[in-house]
Amino acid sequence: MAVLQREYGRRALLQQIRLSGRIPRIELADKTGISRATVTTITAELLQSGLIEEVPRADGGDARRGRPRVDLKIRGAARLVAGVKISQHRLSLVLLDFEGSQLATLETDLPAPVLSPQQMAEAIRTAVARLAETAGRSVEEVSGVGVGIAGLVEAGDGFVHWSPSLTDRNVQFGAVLAAELGRPAFVDNDANLVAEAERLFGLGQSQSDFIVITIESGVGMGLVLGGELYRGSRGCGAEFGHTKVHLDGALCRCGQRGCLEAYVADYALLREAAIVPGADPTAEPAKRLEALLKAARSGEPAAKSIVDRAGRMFAMGLANLVNIFDPALIILAGEQMQFDHLYADTVLGAIRTSIVQVDKPPPEVVIHKWGDLMWARGAAAYALDQVSDLALAEMGDHAA
Amino acid sequence: MAVLQREYGRRALLQQIRLSGRIPRIELADKTGISRATVTTITAELLQSGLIEEVPRADGGDARRGRPRVDLKIRGAARLVAGVKISQHRLSLVLLDFEGSQLATLETDLPAPVLSPQQMAEAIRTAVARLAETAGRSVEEVSGVGVGIAGLVEAGDGFVHWSPSLTDRNVQFGAVLAAELGRPAFVDNDANLVAEAERLFGLGQSQSDFIVITIESGVGMGLVLGGELYRGSRGCGAEFGHTKVHLDGALCRCGQRGCLEAYVADYALLREAAIVPGADPTAEPAKRLEALLKAARSGEPAAKSIVDRAGRMFAMGLANLVNIFDPALIILAGEQMQFDHLYADTVLGAIRTSIVQVDKPPPEVVIHKWGDLMWARGAAAYALDQVSDLALAEMGDHAA
Repeated sequence: MAVLQREYGRRALLQQIRLSGRIPRIELADKTGISRATVTTITAELLQSGLIEEVPRADGGDARRGRPRVDLKIRGAARLVAGVKISQHRLSLVLLDFEGSQLATLETDLPAPVLSPQQMAEAIRTAVARLAETAGRSVEEVSGVGVGIAGLVEAGDGFVHWSPSLTDRNVQFGAVLAAELGRPAFVDNDANLVAEAERLFGLGQSQSDFIVITIESGVGMGLVLGGELYRGSRGCGAEFGHTKVHLDGALCRCGQRGCLEAYVADYALLREAAIVPGADPTAEPAKRLEALLKAARSGEPAAKSIVDRAGRMFAMGLANLVNIFDPALIILAGEQMQFDHLYADTVLGAIRTSIVQVDKPPPEVVIHKWGDLMWARGAAAYALDQVSDLALAEMGDHAA
Repeated sequence: MAVLQREYGRRALLQQIRLSGRIPRIELADKTGISRATVTTITAELLQSGLIEEVPRADGGDARRGRPRVDLKIRGAARLVAGVKISQHRLSLVLLDFEGSQLATLETDLPAPVLSPQQMAEAIRTAVARLAETAGRSVEEVSGVGVGIAGLVEAGDGFVHWSPSLTDRNVQFGAVLAAELGRPAFVDNDANLVAEAERLFGLGQSQSDFIVITIESGVGMGLVLGGELYRGSRGCGAEFGHTKVHLDGALCRCGQRGCLEAYVADYALLREAAIVPGADPTAEPAKRLEALLKAARSGEPAAKSIVDRAGRMFAMGLANLVNIFDPALIILAGEQMQFDHLYADTVLGAIRTSIVQVDKPPPEVVIHKWGDLMWARGAAAYALDQVSDLALAEMGDHAA
């Protein structure tokens, strides 16, 4: 029992120090509810292990008034982690120290949008090596690599049921990656990692319950409940793009009918685009989409009808989430201007009028545009979390 | 800090004793992670307060082998609570002792299906008094009354935004009730209380994440996540009946369009029932519904089409819940045979084929038919929980 309590205490204190940035011991006790004596013991162990360090207080403290002279903080040099976001055409990477400071970034093209698990692992190893090199470090110095990938992922053991980026279904992708890298690898659904980044660094820092919706070629969701990422009973977490918005509706890439994605994804919009006057059915998809959205903005009725319905379906799906979860905050995260129509005021208005009406303000809906590097930062944050746990587990053997 | 830790410890130990039924001290320490010394101190306080009691072990223990001679259990006589379920036409009540043993039950008609908050409170007071009398007790001996009501309820302070059973919106119904009863009253949404009953006494005992769907005149949902009832950021909890299953769809009682209820509720089915050959539009609604369901069962095509669509919409809504929550278990709770068509194998099959397909078994869907008394039991369980907290708070002053 005493061992379990020490492990719990170490974890709680390390997390609190990470959250606080800099914090005196006495506040650690107040914030965690762990006794001052135990805080003293455990922080001594953490200092000895090199995971945290003492720094002088900016104001020097005041011993007479009982104010301490030193704060505790995470020791940046303790560990190194990498975060990787797999997009349709490229990898985005970020290298963080144990404190979360960004040491290097890298963006690199993938040889193809869909790769075998082994090819993808090799592409990631090459990219991580280049990333480490940029900061004058080597892959061997990286304590863990977090990877965000679209699809159905069981984060616990890095099992990918299905991903649009991989040729194979049901892959132990975490194991394939770890073997290729020679380092611990942690794989999760990319929208979950965006939610994790929002929770740790972003708009979710002050919220215990919020939803992050990501829009790329698919629609993703990450759900934070009670201050933690919700993964569901089968570990795959929340799925939003394939919730049904129409009984026997439009055919989806997944093979089912009426999925939200079958109304809002690129390919869904293009199905009807041939009807728009002046449409060129021989152009490549990206060009056709661009033309459709331009026509809609200029008020062309057919184009507008196509794009408006996508927005209304999206609003309906989001309103359902609000009814089910009653979150305080919804974050629409994404970088691509091409989905601006889903962020339109009319869409946000439709969400507000479609939720159950009570005499309380509806949840805040905010749009948070960020690039692929922020997704990579989420992946790195996940790696930081896992690497911290590994570091604490190592400490277990030589505890005081 | 020490005070907070003691409060936490008392709560954790009392809950564990309740969950375990009978448990020796040493197991309490193992199961809660609280040190043996603290368990000894706190259980002594709980014994002194009369909330728990010692009972001899059935096998007498074995002191030589370190097996204790006594177990701890909740002391039934410590407190008395009542649970009330408000249905469309009646009140169902149950009286429990502090151990959760059922001492009396009562079912009584309401003067009308919709009452003013004050009238409803009076009806409940009369019923609770009769209930207590049945067991040879008085209202004054009841430590708390839990009440389940349909609608949007903020359980924290018993605020009812809206309920089909009350004439007024935005009522501090908990306060109205407490004033009328002269006892603490705890109000919650009825489906939440069914979920609570399933968690404590029912099919949810071994599950940390499950969904309870109730079907009466409306469709309710209770959500247990991480072993606790999920109430959302605004305290109203999860809403299922008014999630949208069709953009611009059928008009709902709530004033919006396309709600699930607008496809599966009695009144929704009756909208189209006039088309069924032999339908009598002058009959009262219950008779018309009965005739419709009978015609559907006998294979009459129009009736079958009406009822089948309700089932398919219901399956679609449930499949969306599965996609979003990935629960291990879905419990369909209700007593009314008239909704059997929503529990049909075809509906359950449609749920399985509409969820995201991974190579893992879909969540278990079980049908748990129970009467209004079980709903009342959920309300009483909620009261037990709240009354336990009040009892622990009272202890705070004369702690060792």
